[in-house]
Amino acid sequence: MPPWSERKLIERIRQACKGSVSGLVTSMGDDCCEVRSDASFLISTDTLVDSIHFDCNFHPPHLLGRKSIAVNLSDIAAMGGRPRFVLLSLSLPEELSWEWITAWLDGVFEILREHSCFLIGGDTVKSHELAFAVTVLGEPVGGGAIYRNGAEMGDTVWVSGPLGSAGAGLELLRHQSDQKLSADSRFDALYAAHLNPIPMIALGQELVRSELVTSMQDISDGLATDLAHICKSSGVAARVFAEQLPCHPELQVAADLLNVEAEDLLLRAGEDYQLVFTVRKGQEVAFIQLMQESAPGVCRVGEIVSGEGVFLQKKFHSEEISFQGFEH
Amino acid sequence: MPPWSERKLIERIRQACKGSVSGLVTSMGDDCCEVRSDASFLISTDTLVDSIHFDCNFHPPHLLGRKSIAVNLSDIAAMGGRPRFVLLSLSLPEELSWEWITAWLDGVFEILREHSCFLIGGDTVKSHELAFAVTVLGEPVGGGAIYRNGAEMGDTVWVSGPLGSAGAGLELLRHQSDQKLSADSRFDALYAAHLNPIPMIALGQELVRSELVTSMQDISDGLATDLAHICKSSGVAARVFAEQLPCHPELQVAADLLNVEAEDLLLRAGEDYQLVFTVRKGQEVAFIQLMQESAPGVCRVGEIVSGEGVFLQKKFHSEEISFQGFEH
Repeated sequence: MPPWSERKLIERIRQACKGSVSGLVTSMGDDCCEVRSDASFLISTDTLVDSIHFDCNFHPPHLLGRKSIAVNLSDIAAMGGRPRFVLLSLSLPEELSWEWITAWLDGVFEILREHSCFLIGGDTVKSHELAFAVTVLGEPVGGGAIYRNGAEMGDTVWVSGPLGSAGAGLELLRHQSDQKLSADSRFDALYAAHLNPIPMIALGQELVRSELVTSMQDISDGLATDLAHICKSSGVAARVFAEQLPCHPELQVAADLLNVEAEDLLLRAGEDYQLVFTVRKGQEVAFIQLMQESAPGVCRVGEIVSGEGVFLQKKFHSEEISFQGFEH
Repeated sequence: MPPWSERKLIERIRQACKGSVSGLVTSMGDDCCEVRSDASFLISTDTLVDSIHFDCNFHPPHLLGRKSIAVNLSDIAAMGGRPRFVLLSLSLPEELSWEWITAWLDGVFEILREHSCFLIGGDTVKSHELAFAVTVLGEPVGGGAIYRNGAEMGDTVWVSGPLGSAGAGLELLRHQSDQKLSADSRFDALYAAHLNPIPMIALGQELVRSELVTSMQDISDGLATDLAHICKSSGVAARVFAEQLPCHPELQVAADLLNVEAEDLLLRAGEDYQLVFTVRKGQEVAFIQLMQESAPGVCRVGEIVSGEGVFLQKKFHSEEISFQGFEH
């Protein structure tokens, strides 16, 4: 007898999904669920695979449940949308414990509640490899979604907060798992950035409402790659100033300890799920004033120029870094 | 160097998805795609995992590509909807050949074209295990979707065509793969039922338009289970007449050769992706007349009665078969 059955799992999920919500016509219990929107739906799908996107040796199931949803919500944030509905496709090995599965589910439902987002369907399959495929549906707010293709020459490039934290956190956790390092509370924010990333849902919507943001995306593969996507879509280039990249105060300490370049963590490690976006030419001051109270962490890191690619500007030279981010 | 790269694959998919279609606001190339519907969206998601849902030893990649989409389209058919958009989450081992991947993709695009359905997004991840998570969005036609919960006492139970073919086909193919049997053209329809199932999209819509169908679902886990879902949702029971179950003329021959019970294939093997549905009490004749030309294969197999569960009526006795279908 395996420690859990699909039917027991589905029953538990159904119990947690009772109730109704606007826009939801039919939920679980039919071949399809049915949803309605007066505007449009923003849809994204992402899969997390064991030992490629996460490591169960050090990722607590509750936080992994949160993260499985968070990385998808981040795609909605990157368009400035409001998340509404989620579908889950769970590939679960038979030997998983029921405790592990329910802790994972508790994390899923916790983050869904925090964002008033509703689980409406999905499927479970027994597999050899643990994997979670999540589809999330959101709706644009106020002024509509922000796309990648709106950046223009003279716009400025911004990020929503510190970079490199998740990459440093992951490496620190790996070294602890291999017993090469012991846990160190100085690095708690770095661990958390990897284990429990926070999707920038509220900020994304605020950026839409500002009407000053011309393009946006989330940083999942590293600024070097994600800003390159914006540039490619918009037909422009970007110059990033190395000294303006925001990071957690302990990032350099962690980089030294790990014997890696802090710059690699900042630009190439990815998984921070911060937003990178461009502010319309000449509107920087108005934008700073607007963000002053609600999002003091937003930080200008560069500018949009003519040409192609992303260039890192250091004190005495510049180098191209386009698409050098991590390929997940 | 692996034989393929994610970027090459995504580029190929993007090339195949160029163009615009009504309801599609933004497709690939942003964090989310964006779709719009005047009515509602029917949504379903399903995952196929290697060596659990398919066997690459005998499943040609082109047909597997078709099937990966077909099983999801079948969920739209089961609501009487029109498929519109698809998202793919591909988990691909590095050692897959580029030829295999492109043949699989060709099958995907072929069946999407046949149903005027558009691939709008997804993601690809490298994994140890080959798996395809597909999310499909459809729209209800005319009179709206048909749900599982509308069956009432006195309604009659129908299926859209022969049962057990896919189950028999799979077992025959397995035995050929183990060299216990050789290929036999008598069984071509049975092989095809497993390798290349046809989603009943046109029929599903016709059943909506008939306004005579009270509940419906597709047969993925076997009639014993799928009719039990209808009964549970509707708060009724069903009596199925063993002698009325339609099957391919060679099913009994195949069952004898495989040394299995034909009844098991008919009721419990699943994967036929036929529809099971109920016709409103007293409307059987009107329904037969209506279907005579367009769907002569529909077949009455039972009736809805009071109580709980699904019962198989044989000549001299009756037995409960609720939820005895295959758990995928």
